[in-house]
Amino acid sequence: MNRKIDLDNVKVVHSFDIEDLDQKAVFCRCWKSEKFPYCDGTHNKHNELTGDNVGPLIIQKK
Amino acid sequence: MNRKIDLDNVKVVHSFDIEDLDQKAVFCRCWKSEKFPYCDGTHNKHNELTGDNVGPLIIQKK
Repeated sequence: MNRKIDLDNVKVVHSFDIEDLDQKAVFCRCWKSEKFPYCDGTHNKHNELTGDNVGPLIIQKK
Repeated sequence: MNRKIDLDNVKVVHSFDIEDLDQKAVFCRCWKSEKFPYCDGTHNKHNELTGDNVGPLIIQKK
């Protein structure tokens, strides 16, 4: 499912400390974002083309 | 890429307030975890079977 991100890495894992996150962080789960690990909305085009239904993970501070 | 999670939903998005997260939250990005949206390590079997290199997103509190 990942054709473009960090391909020479055997397993692409991202780790964040909560303190370093913005007020609202939207993380990609479709592996097609140009701003990976962040979402850029590409999942919509992917879902349209493939009939998939993937979407992002949102982490926000109150 | 999603064959099993919330298939009748047009777009599967998850949103969390930071205050509700555990000390360390590991989120699935391979769409195969039995504990989705959390990771259960299934990405390792997926990567082995397919040559993919996907892995989770980790959010932790200092």
